[in-house]
This record gives sequence, C-alpha cells and structure tokens, in this order.
Amino acid sequence: MITGNNYIGSNLSDKGTKTFFTFNPITDSENSWQMIEASESEVEAAIELAADAAADFAKVSGADKAEFLNAIADEIMALGDELISTYCAETGLPEGRAKGERGRTVFQLRSFANLVAEGSWVEASIDTAIPDRTPAPKPDLRKMNIPLGPVVVFGASNFPLAYSTAGGDTTAALAAGCPVIVKSHPMHAGTGELVASAIIKAAKDTQMPDGIFSNLNSAGIEVGVQLVKHPFVKAVGFTGSIRGGRALLDLAAQREEPIPVFAEMGSINPVVILPEALNQRTAEIAKTYAGSITLGSGQFCTNPGLILGLKSAELDTFIESLGTEITQLESSVMLHPDIHSAYESNKETALDGPEVTTVAALAKEVPVNYSQQAIATVNGSEFLINPTLHQEVFGPFSMVVQCQDTEEMELILLNLEGQLTGTLIAEETELEAYEGVIDSLQNRVGRLIYNGVPTGVEVCPSMVHGGPYPASTDSRFTAVGIHSIKRWVRPFSYQNWPDALLPDALKNGNPLGIERLVDGETTKKVL
Amino acid sequence: MITGNNYIGSNLSDKGTKTFFTFNPITDSENSWQMIEASESEVEAAIELAADAAADFAKVSGADKAEFLNAIADEIMALGDELISTYCAETGLPEGRAKGERGRTVFQLRSFANLVAEGSWVEASIDTAIPDRTPAPKPDLRKMNIPLGPVVVFGASNFPLAYSTAGGDTTAALAAGCPVIVKSHPMHAGTGELVASAIIKAAKDTQMPDGIFSNLNSAGIEVGVQLVKHPFVKAVGFTGSIRGGRALLDLAAQREEPIPVFAEMGSINPVVILPEALNQRTAEIAKTYAGSITLGSGQFCTNPGLILGLKSAELDTFIESLGTEITQLESSVMLHPDIHSAYESNKETALDGPEVTTVAALAKEVPVNYSQQAIATVNGSEFLINPTLHQEVFGPFSMVVQCQDTEEMELILLNLEGQLTGTLIAEETELEAYEGVIDSLQNRVGRLIYNGVPTGVEVCPSMVHGGPYPASTDSRFTAVGIHSIKRWVRPFSYQNWPDALLPDALKNGNPLGIERLVDGETTKKVL
Repeated sequence: MITGNNYIGSNLSDKGTKTFFTFNPITDSENSWQMIEASESEVEAAIELAADAAADFAKVSGADKAEFLNAIADEIMALGDELISTYCAETGLPEGRAKGERGRTVFQLRSFANLVAEGSWVEASIDTAIPDRTPAPKPDLRKMNIPLGPVVVFGASNFPLAYSTAGGDTTAALAAGCPVIVKSHPMHAGTGELVASAIIKAAKDTQMPDGIFSNLNSAGIEVGVQLVKHPFVKAVGFTGSIRGGRALLDLAAQREEPIPVFAEMGSINPVVILPEALNQRTAEIAKTYAGSITLGSGQFCTNPGLILGLKSAELDTFIESLGTEITQLESSVMLHPDIHSAYESNKETALDGPEVTTVAALAKEVPVNYSQQAIATVNGSEFLINPTLHQEVFGPFSMVVQCQDTEEMELILLNLEGQLTGTLIAEETELEAYEGVIDSLQNRVGRLIYNGVPTGVEVCPSMVHGGPYPASTDSRFTAVGIHSIKRWVRPFSYQNWPDALLPDALKNGNPLGIERLVDGETTKKVL
Repeated sequence: MITGNNYIGSNLSDKGTKTFFTFNPITDSENSWQMIEASESEVEAAIELAADAAADFAKVSGADKAEFLNAIADEIMALGDELISTYCAETGLPEGRAKGERGRTVFQLRSFANLVAEGSWVEASIDTAIPDRTPAPKPDLRKMNIPLGPVVVFGASNFPLAYSTAGGDTTAALAAGCPVIVKSHPMHAGTGELVASAIIKAAKDTQMPDGIFSNLNSAGIEVGVQLVKHPFVKAVGFTGSIRGGRALLDLAAQREEPIPVFAEMGSINPVVILPEALNQRTAEIAKTYAGSITLGSGQFCTNPGLILGLKSAELDTFIESLGTEITQLESSVMLHPDIHSAYESNKETALDGPEVTTVAALAKEVPVNYSQQAIATVNGSEFLINPTLHQEVFGPFSMVVQCQDTEEMELILLNLEGQLTGTLIAEETELEAYEGVIDSLQNRVGRLIYNGVPTGVEVCPSMVHGGPYPASTDSRFTAVGIHSIKRWVRPFSYQNWPDALLPDALKNGNPLGIERLVDGETTKKVL
C-alpha cells in the first residue's frame, strides 16, 4: 500500500508539509495517492543514519549482502499486481513493459548477489614481504576495494524500476557496501515507495543495519541539493537530462570535499549507414530503424536520433522509406505531459531549423499525451554549423544527415558531443575503406554496434553503458553490468597488517576462496 | 645538453619570449642554463600534435609500447652523469638520492613495459551471443580498456624523476596509449628537459607517432591553464599542493566538457600510538620517527606530520624522547628557497597556535636554505577546534596530539581531512580494544601501516597511493603501481563486431594469449 510517506531508514515518516500527486498520462489525470515531500530535518536524519550505518555495513560479508540483494528481488516480486498497476498508472507504459522491466531489475539484483557471494570482485592483491631485500626490505602489502560511504541515487523518469529505486545504481552501491539514499523520481513516486518498502523489508529480514537505505520524496530540487551538498554523502548516481546531471556535477565539484558524480545523461546515438549496405538492404534497414526510433515512444537513452549517410540516390530512397515506415506505425503515449510537451517543442525546434527538411511527421489526430513521430533530414554542412541539431529530442524522432563525402562524415563525427552508442550499418566488403569513419565514431562513443540497433542494453559484464561527456560524466565507468560496482569503491592498502585483523579477502588462508593477484599471479591459492 | 627549449613533439622550439633559471639551494644561486617558456602558439601546437597522434598511438601494440617504455628507461640511464649533476644542482638533494630516484623511475618504466607486453591489463571481457534466447536474442558483446586521449601531466617539486617528466603519471598514461604533454616543473626544468630528450629519442627509435610526447617550460600558471582548458585534452595528472591541485580540478570541472583530474596533494599522515606499544618501546619508536620526520628534509608527501597518543606519563616520555632525538639529527638543505621559507613560515604559524607547546626546535645556526626541524604538542580538544593545525607543514615537522581518551581520539580521526596514509603503532594484545580507532583511521586514509613508518612508498600492484580528498582528488584510483594505469582508460564495448575488425585483445583466437573474462569465467582460452 502506498502511504505517501518517506522512508528514513526503516521508519515511515511524514513530517513534510508539501505534497504532490503523480500523473496518469493515459487518463490525463492525477493519481489518487498523495505523496509527502521529505522535510529538511528528514533529509538530515536519513543522511546521519546512513553515515552511522556505513562502517557496520562495510563489514557485512559478501554472503550476507547476497542474501539481502536476493531478498530484495523476492520482495519486489511479492509486491505482485499492485506494483505493476502502479507502474502503469504512473507512466502510461503497458503491462508487458512493466513486467519486462521488473524482470530486468530482479535479474540485476541477482547478478550482483552472485557477484558479491563469489567475492573476487574486490580485486584482492597481495605482494608478500621480502625482509632481506637490499637496499631496503620489501613490506607486505595487500589491497582490495572498499565502499566509498553513503551514496545518493537519483532515479530515471523512463525506467521506474531498472534505473530507479532498486535499479542499477542502488543495487551496485548496496553490493559494494555503500548505504544508499534514493531521491525518488516525482513522476513515479508511488512505484518508488512500493519498491522502497521491498528493500526495507528485505533489509530487516536479513538483519542489515538500519539506515543503509532511505527513500525521500520531492517534486522540487531542494531535497536533491541538500543531499548532494552534505559532507557525509560520498558519491552520487544520476540518470536523466544533461541539464539535471550537469547541475549535480557542478554542485558536487563546488563542495569543500568534491565527490564523484556518475550521471548517465543525454545521447543521440549516431548511426552510420555505409553505401553498400544501403544498396543491398534499404527497405530492411528502414523498417528496422522505424521500429527502433519509435520503441517505447522513443523514450530510451539509446534511441537512434541521428543517422548519417553519404549523399546519393540510394540515401534518398532510404530516407523516403524510413519516412513511410515510421508514419505507418501507431503513435503511443508518453510518460508524462511535461515529457510530451518537451518532445513536441524540441521536435518543432529541430524541424524549424534552417535548411532542415521534414521527411515525415505523423499528422493524424492522436489521443492526449501521445507522441507524433517524425523524421527530418539536413545536409552535413548545415548540421556541422548548427549545434541545436545535435541536441537530443527525447521521443520518437530522428534526423538523417546527408554527408557530401567521407571527410565530411568524419568531421561531423569528430565534432559530435560524447555518446552512449555508435552504430555502423555496413557490408563486410566496404569496412576497410571506411577505417577513418569507424575510428571517428569510436572516439565519441562508449559502445559500437555492428548491423543492429542501439536500443536494447544487455545486462552483462561486457556491456559499457556510458561514454564521453555528456553521455556520462565519467567515461571511466559503465552504468550497466557488474563492473558498474567500481563506481562506488576505492582501493585500499594494508601494509604489514596482522593477518587476524585483515578482511577475509586478504587473509593468508583465503577463507573466501577468491581469485587474488598474489605476487603478480592470478590465483586462488592459500599463502 | 640542456638547450632551454621546449619539445613540441620531437621538435626543439624556442619561440617564447619569457625566460627563467632554475636555482641551486646549496650555492644559493641561479643555475647557468636558461629556460625558455612555451608560448601560447607552442602550447597549441603541442596539443594539436598530441590530438593528431592519439588515434594512431591507441592502435600501437602492447609489445611495441613495451619496447618504447624500455627504450625510455635505457635512454634515461644513458644520460649518465649529466642527469645526476643537473638533478643535484636543481634540488640540493644528494647524489645517492638522485640515483635512487632514477632507479625507481626506470623500475616504473620497466614495470609498465612488462604490464603492456603481457597485455591482460586491458581487462578484456567477452559475452558470447545466444541467438535463440527468448524473448530476445543475446548479442555478442566484448569489452576492453581503451586510452582516454591526450593527458597533461604536472610534475612534482619533490620528485624530479619518479613523479615528473617520465614519472608515474607519464609512464602510466603512455602505457595506456595516451599521448602526454608534460608541463615541466620550473624548479627542475633542466632535469625535465634532459628526461624529455630521452623520451623523444626513445619514441623516434621505436617509431612511435610524433606528438605522443611534448615537454613545455613555464615558471607561471598560464601554460598550465591553457593546457587544462583545451578541448582536445582529456585528462590531467598532478602531484603537488592542495591549492594547486584544487585550482586545476576547478578549471577542469568548469569546462564545457569536464575532464578527470587525478591530483595527489597534501597529507599529514596520522600516526596512532597505542598505550602498550608506548610502554614497551618508547625509545625505539621515538628514534624511528625522528628519522622518518626528517627524511629528505621532511619533503615527502607521506611525511608523518601528526602523531596521536592517549594522555599519559608514557606519552610525556615519548614526546620528550622524540624531541631529543630530532634535535640530535643533522639539518639538511631544502629543495628551493621558496619551499624553505614556506616551511619556516608554516612551522611558525603552527608553533604560535593557541595552547601549542614547542617540544623541540633546532635552534643552532644552519646554512642558508637548510631546514630547522621541530616537534610540537597540543591537547586533543584544542586540535579538534583549530583547523590550522590540520594543515600540512611541508618539511621536517610533526605535531603530537595528546588525546583525553579513546572517544576523543576517534573524533579527531573522523574529523580529519582525507590522508594518503594512516599508521598504527601497537602491540597485538591491545588491538581488539581499539577497533573503533582503527575503523576511524581507515575511513580517512588510502593505506594503513602497522608498526612502521609512512615514508617509503613501495612500487607494487598492492600499493594504494591516494586516498579521500584532499589526499587525492579521486580516491577511486592509486597514483603508484601498475593499477594507476586505470586513471587514463575507459572501458569500451563492441556489439556483434566482426572478428577481423576487433582489436587483438578481443579476437576469438586470443592472439595475445591474455587472460579474459569469457562468459563469466577468467580464462586464456581460444573461442
């Protein structure tokens, strides 16, 4: 049941005086559950609880953390229909998507449970002493990853489950041993509270220290600002707009003690289509891309918003086909009236740009809050000089850029802002001739896709979801997959430390049976 | 031979109009070689060369990079006596130290050469496709570390070789495949040019692309500011003061595209002495610490500037012994008159603090630019409320804080700024009773040392040289040891990419024979 309260650790708390409601974009009306914003003192209380719990939580074993994470997964499933119906009412997304995203969330939790249960993720490293080395003895040094401390997580509007309350950031931080305070996304705060209740129940059932998780409601920015500025907060995770992510990054950089912010932000995900591929399969590519551009109303961070080709009759045909395909697809509802109006307004700005031609735009009447997909095209020379066209239009929209030649294509790619993904549509025979294009594309992205679509982010160790700024604020980390845990840890060394006092991961006896780097060799051996 | 010129890639260049001289603190006079500052256009040229070389350098094989790094080591040794005499003339440090630091530098170069020659450092990860997975096929995903792009390195005043021109930052960045532009430290610019000449010769001999290394002279801040603000620069390494490091961090954070800055800055390296250890070996500890505090005139970032004990007669005895020991040691010359005067002034500020007692201060006359070591003591309650006493006094000085009780000791530790190291001097029998103290110490540092001294930073995989801010600007990385390469790389994913086009590290045949994570298993197997 949604109470509208905040979770300050395990306590439901309603001291705030401001309230708000979430919104159902299908019925175009507010949902019935009233959410209470966290007050300044509640925010402070959540942070202090998290800081108090940090040292104890850092010592919880991998096995116990795994039990906790698996219990969260179980409790999320146990929320049953109420979670699904709340999710749908707060997003307008269909039940199938809700269940799919719940499956992804549970999969992530269990993946991290497996990771910490196994234990080698701490990257234990041991260099044994050489007491008789000259000119100076070599000390015994042992290193492993330890948690950074309390982490603040801002959930995503477009992923109420997989990238919000118990999403990738929270799960990775809890797995690392960091207490987490979630600033719940106001568009799906009811869903957020339900998931928070599952985390709190799991934490109690598995005897985790109180304060390792809090969930705070807020429709404004004050709660977030208070969290990010607080000296006890040691890192921030964010998924959302460039404006929002940059504001948090700037706040964190201005602190007396600057802290890391991992923000996964905007991307237009360039797709390069080479000539021979166009020759061979224009119709197929157009159909596939019409589907990718409109998937989930285009509300994915990996939505292909930019398609690059070399000016030619074949490219003209492709553009025409893409326009035809996209207008044949059904329109769908967007997450929120604000997102819908931002989409329509950003789309108009792009379409109204100088020398931009509208290829296709769904013109028929659609229900309220439904998006009208569109395709535009522009010459490379114009795209190069108009940075407005580089901006993400969050929704079912894509711009096809007609490049004069390979050099112009390379120049456009090299001048693009950082991107999550880059896609190459090509035949194997033409790859060698376009090495410069491929290099330029790689330079600007976190993931390269061959003959596919950027939408669909597989959760696996080899995934990089991140990229040069502004795709993310720190390209040295991924936001998806088990290695995303590295965002929330720091390496720590013990020198000549007594074996009995070392964490299990570094003890001579290797009681956890994990892989360690011992005197330069990867091994599970006992010392 | 020192020309005083800048290296813009392999070209010696002297277009600047400003000049400066380095200084010999022993003779208290300028050295004879005149250095020419890099002009704005030379800085721009170095950056453009680096950016142009980046894509080619990123493709250089590990074996070829290893040859390059080993050639740098050889060329540094081949500089022979000129390097050693220049080093001594620019720092006042003795020949033994010069040779020792050269040995460390060469060891670092060869360690990274071995790392990249072996190749597993790229953390290759492969998740093979499952085409018939439902509801959606699983794509083939492969991930590895790739270089960030051009890196700017600011050398340290106190390590002209090991943490400057061809020091840890430069070596790790070159090993990663990043072009490096060094902003040479003005106090040892002659040494810097000699080392730069060795790097350039090695680069030519091993056919590295021109522009992967430049060396720029400057006695002011303009060159550094221009470098850090330039959009082609992708990361910054710095070793030095908190003020300098923070200024660079702020500059980098304010860029349109913020970039990572790894600055290793100030530290007072707290040492906690527990009562039983004091009972057992006061004299020994005092003697050892007098040596550590004055080592290299106290000009090490790991110098123990803060010693914490519990108020007692034994602590009084220790303080007295430490004072006696330290005044019996010879005074030594500091690196530069500016460093010497900063030391004397910061020491006076500390000694003049309210309720601070001077335990011992070398009073006898010393040669010009020689430091006069000192020990002070203060009560825990006063230390807690006086942040001035938390500041590093760079030189042979340490403050002993007398804590009322364990609680006060924990409070002091928890309120300390981040530190590179924390040291515990204890008997095994008393460890259990001080768990809270140990936890608090660990919370604030990057490395814990048991019954030793913090000075002496072993170069090995298990070393962490870094720590919570302001010990470093990003505690998630170490500045020393092979894993410091992680500062300069980002993970990168290929999805369904043709095998022939993949980098060797990710090819099915594993031609490099490296360890890879294949479908979750660490293996060298061929696919």
